[in-house]
Amino acid sequence: MQRWKIIIEYDGGPFVGWQRQDNGASVQQRLEEAAQVLAGCPTPVQGAGRTDSGVHALGQIAHLDIEKPLRADQVRDALNYHLRPDPITVLEAEPVPEDFHARFSATGRVYLYRILNRRPPPALDTGKVWHNQRPLDADLMHEAAQSLVGHHDFTSFRSSECQADSAVKTLDKVRVRRAGEEIHVDVAARSFLHNQVRIIVGTLELVGRGKWSRRQLEKALQAKDRSAAGPTAPPEGLYLVSVQYA
Amino acid sequence: MQRWKIIIEYDGGPFVGWQRQDNGASVQQRLEEAAQVLAGCPTPVQGAGRTDSGVHALGQIAHLDIEKPLRADQVRDALNYHLRPDPITVLEAEPVPEDFHARFSATGRVYLYRILNRRPPPALDTGKVWHNQRPLDADLMHEAAQSLVGHHDFTSFRSSECQADSAVKTLDKVRVRRAGEEIHVDVAARSFLHNQVRIIVGTLELVGRGKWSRRQLEKALQAKDRSAAGPTAPPEGLYLVSVQYA
Repeated sequence: MQRWKIIIEYDGGPFVGWQRQDNGASVQQRLEEAAQVLAGCPTPVQGAGRTDSGVHALGQIAHLDIEKPLRADQVRDALNYHLRPDPITVLEAEPVPEDFHARFSATGRVYLYRILNRRPPPALDTGKVWHNQRPLDADLMHEAAQSLVGHHDFTSFRSSECQADSAVKTLDKVRVRRAGEEIHVDVAARSFLHNQVRIIVGTLELVGRGKWSRRQLEKALQAKDRSAAGPTAPPEGLYLVSVQYA
Repeated sequence: MQRWKIIIEYDGGPFVGWQRQDNGASVQQRLEEAAQVLAGCPTPVQGAGRTDSGVHALGQIAHLDIEKPLRADQVRDALNYHLRPDPITVLEAEPVPEDFHARFSATGRVYLYRILNRRPPPALDTGKVWHNQRPLDADLMHEAAQSLVGHHDFTSFRSSECQADSAVKTLDKVRVRRAGEEIHVDVAARSFLHNQVRIIVGTLELVGRGKWSRRQLEKALQAKDRSAAGPTAPPEGLYLVSVQYA
């Protein structure tokens, strides 16, 4: 038996999310179906992060166990062959020790949020960005975002359906920068709460359009109440960029 | 009557190309339909370049005449409203003198060709890049491409169906550079022959994978025979980036 770590890119648009669900095709399900054809038996695929429906990945990580001996390029190419024509692609496969766990061994996760900040709608990036027509000040957003960095109770910034035992997390980095017509929000932490990045972005948008001050964002964090923060930004602008391991 | 210059972004995938044709929806047709609703009468839309089916635009230029007085933002927003949900968007509208002609007044055109040069297929950029699995040397491609710059008879680099009277053109610039997993080919000229950029890229690909030398590319140019050059690269990697006017 060999455990394989795989790096996966996907377009979250057509899927109900990473995780298997009853109401439609998930990325995990499609990967498990491809892995079953390759391995010849049911093969669970465990991911590092459970992205929501519509959320994309440039570098999701998962692990799976395969009995028969294979080379890394065979694992990658065979999975990609069986994944066609779904917009899921295995970028790399790497043999790892049996105690490697995509989710529990992870020591860091990086997300990118893309806002297309212009009046005309996207033609080439439909479903890949949050189209936001209000003029946003990226510098103000960046400055206010620094109040979220560090060790905090993020109750205000997690979905009311979040099942994590504790809302206390350490946010390592938030960077907001303008990139032409887009605003990019880069966020890094060991782990995130459900919808945490999207609520952070939805709240920073209030700052960017001048409706909220940095002080108001700080008060929202201190309130420890979901209704004190801004709305949840839409899923289509969010990308799981990478997952780190020690 | 006011003549309007518009800048247009579109995803060429769902269309038969820029130009009206009998066999399916074109970008020009969809724009003319939107313009007719706005203007209240049939309104021709004349584009700067006739992109083929599957070819995209970041900055196509067109002009149209509208009788009733309108502001630039009204022209842009109304066209975009009537274009929904097609992947065509008007980025800007600008009033221009009556003698402005999107095609005949143009003094320069810039194209970008994107090659995704990796083994795994694209998941997020399907239909937006040429997926080419062979390892390509961008430096070799760039060096050989310089033989095409300048005033030449490009008979070898135009479609056998090209209707231009002369195949003599001046290529102002070709730049080939690696951008992560992609190779980008930037090309600029006053005007181009039919399929010229795609045949240039298809021929440079032969150089990039070591099958052709720079000398062979020069011989292909000198042959003045379409069959002497390489294949036509697929449309989905090509973007009309911008059009210049004096």
